[in-house]
Amino acid sequence: MSLLVVGSLALDTIETPFGKANEALGGSAVYISVAASYFTAPIRLVGIVGGDFPQSAIDFLNDRSIDLEGLERIPEGKTFRWSGKYHYDLNVRDTLFTQLNVFEKFDPKIPDSYRRSKYVVLGNIDPVLQRRVLEQIEKPRLVIGDTMNFWIEGKRNELMETLKFLNVLIINDSEARLLAHEPNLIRAAKKIIGFGPKILIIKKGEHGALLVTDNIIFSAPAYPMENIYDPTGAGDTFAGGFIGWLAKSDDVSDENLKKAVIYGSAMASFCVEKFSIEGLKDLTYLKIQDRFRAFKDLSDF
Amino acid sequence: MSLLVVGSLALDTIETPFGKANEALGGSAVYISVAASYFTAPIRLVGIVGGDFPQSAIDFLNDRSIDLEGLERIPEGKTFRWSGKYHYDLNVRDTLFTQLNVFEKFDPKIPDSYRRSKYVVLGNIDPVLQRRVLEQIEKPRLVIGDTMNFWIEGKRNELMETLKFLNVLIINDSEARLLAHEPNLIRAAKKIIGFGPKILIIKKGEHGALLVTDNIIFSAPAYPMENIYDPTGAGDTFAGGFIGWLAKSDDVSDENLKKAVIYGSAMASFCVEKFSIEGLKDLTYLKIQDRFRAFKDLSDF
Repeated sequence: MSLLVVGSLALDTIETPFGKANEALGGSAVYISVAASYFTAPIRLVGIVGGDFPQSAIDFLNDRSIDLEGLERIPEGKTFRWSGKYHYDLNVRDTLFTQLNVFEKFDPKIPDSYRRSKYVVLGNIDPVLQRRVLEQIEKPRLVIGDTMNFWIEGKRNELMETLKFLNVLIINDSEARLLAHEPNLIRAAKKIIGFGPKILIIKKGEHGALLVTDNIIFSAPAYPMENIYDPTGAGDTFAGGFIGWLAKSDDVSDENLKKAVIYGSAMASFCVEKFSIEGLKDLTYLKIQDRFRAFKDLSDF
Repeated sequence: MSLLVVGSLALDTIETPFGKANEALGGSAVYISVAASYFTAPIRLVGIVGGDFPQSAIDFLNDRSIDLEGLERIPEGKTFRWSGKYHYDLNVRDTLFTQLNVFEKFDPKIPDSYRRSKYVVLGNIDPVLQRRVLEQIEKPRLVIGDTMNFWIEGKRNELMETLKFLNVLIINDSEARLLAHEPNLIRAAKKIIGFGPKILIIKKGEHGALLVTDNIIFSAPAYPMENIYDPTGAGDTFAGGFIGWLAKSDDVSDENLKKAVIYGSAMASFCVEKFSIEGLKDLTYLKIQDRFRAFKDLSDF
């Protein structure tokens, strides 16, 4: 089934205790699209880059059969850049710099050929822009949104309005607590479902993920990782695997949502095994199925 | 199968955002024994109390068929007291006071009738005392030990010696990282297994628990709790449910260890629903089975 992905494309400079990546391909739209491309087609990307965006990155996205008609290029502008440094405890990171560049003026325009996309993922961008995307789409089957502390604290009212139009919200545990003003995660989840999205996924990093709907609570384990090289993009990769599986199976039942959470977790586990998007480059459907089964072994009793 | 429990008996004064308990029955040996008493018999308790230990507490332990021959009473002494205050976020607590009283001179003496206990739980006491207990036991089938930051930091060498005699170590995630000097939990777990105990359980509070052996890693979910009234004793109750199930089934295979982790988690979820040991007072085997099944629903996909 058709999948529309809107978000950032970035050049990331990342330092972890295990190494360094310089101006590597990144950004939410990239991680989401690439992860989803192992499951479904067509994938339609909407984003913005500068004249300095490398041809090798374009080639890679083309190779993954990602439709770039919606990719806006500003020849005289510079691509969004982010730099972060992870500590020995990889749960802690410092942002070294954020250069929004062309991304500052991003105003997503959805090409005509994208307007009937059945599945939509709104990466972590201004909630006003997320809504503007939805105004340009005709009756999608499922809309998934991501957000972050920056918008929860800085544009709360706009975000609350956007939440009404989402079917699925994917956030992490600290964001859920902040959004609901509630330290208990289960109460926070139920409160957030009351805000609009009937399906909530709370990512808990090394502790796995929770799926909460009106009918079920599902607890997905985290894949036991001894070597996490670079956590960048894990959350977006989760979203890509999750929506990729849903779009492929075209089934949004509670039981299939659970499977989608496991596929999302599996893709995220591949992502963090290498730097940047390297861990998502040479996967096969067989490798992904093996990891899916490893999650079953991990939690079955 | 016979189960020996060594640990503290205490009078706890607890404040949480939901209420207060004054000099309520507590202590590791109490929570472990009471939780295990829903699964197996006989349960043999070794601990120490003062002349002020209430008769109602003795009656309650007798009602749960817990053998108190090993309970030392010092008529002129006072019972161990602990007081803690939990914050709005129940993961954070302040110790208001600790009065060791008779517990300061605790030197566990194992009655002759206890020496052939098949299963042994060493609550969180000085690792030197834990070893002294084991010297008085004849060939137990399984020895489980608990410890804490205080001993990991303060008596590391003694603890490392004790670890060699444990089959199972139950600790929480921050203790595991501290013990192994390793932030990655999976690597920490493997390192700790190298220290002696071939079975390691890492409790992660609201994120569930990990079981790690030479052969498997098992991730148990946490029961989704909207109302946690008092987290005191949850860890000991987990240990009691865990060992209770193992002693009942007399099977320490990896598959049965997984079930034991779920029974431990189930008992802990009952514990925190009420103050002190109230949540463990009126359980039935049917209620426990229902909660076990709820854990299955929670993690099955």
